[in-house]
Amino acid sequence: MKFKSSLNLSSNHLTLLKKPADMIVTCVYVHVKPDEVNSFIDATIANHLESVREHGNLRFDLIQQADDPCRFMIYEAYESGAAAANHKTTTHYLRWRDIVKDYMAEPRQGVKYNIIEPNDRTRW
Amino acid sequence: MKFKSSLNLSSNHLTLLKKPADMIVTCVYVHVKPDEVNSFIDATIANHLESVREHGNLRFDLIQQADDPCRFMIYEAYESGAAAANHKTTTHYLRWRDIVKDYMAEPRQGVKYNIIEPNDRTRW
Repeated sequence: MKFKSSLNLSSNHLTLLKKPADMIVTCVYVHVKPDEVNSFIDATIANHLESVREHGNLRFDLIQQADDPCRFMIYEAYESGAAAANHKTTTHYLRWRDIVKDYMAEPRQGVKYNIIEPNDRTRW
Repeated sequence: MKFKSSLNLSSNHLTLLKKPADMIVTCVYVHVKPDEVNSFIDATIANHLESVREHGNLRFDLIQQADDPCRFMIYEAYESGAAAANHKTTTHYLRWRDIVKDYMAEPRQGVKYNIIEPNDRTRW
């Protein structure tokens, strides 16, 4: 599902085909100890508020599983792998990582996805 | 994590506390048969394009797992449970449901979440 910008020479006109950016999502699944749920939420809201201001960030949603308030997902979308990697060097990420370390009932899991839709940057 | 609009009478001023909308996300996980991946993508792009035009829809992202192109997630965010329920009555949803039925390697799984951040409608 990767497309490259290219010239379509079969057309009567030279057409610059759309080039979906190398946008990616990481879904981060976090299982939190019951007594630490509120502390985890506070720390992650702080991380959210900084992360959405990063260059190249598309989304940084924090959601809580409806049938289990100890389970969360962070939906992290970036316009490139480089922008996603840069997130892990920021002060706010490093602070969050250290604060929430002891809140977790088990190690968090990240699952990487390529984006099919919305397929251009302007619709994010 | 549900808050109700209320008057804060302990303040010097009557303060209308913010009332996060009853926004929800459903993450729909789909495992597709290898030969049906392209057909599934086509059908789901069509569903995406109609779904994002629904009243009350916040997002309807289609993403493909980076290490397994047969696994997809649809990130469906709605401003209320009623708007999410209405999605399942639309012509485009019903058409999608019937088309993709035979493309799936196993039954799809939906996981419901409450939204913590972004916590107001204007930041979606």
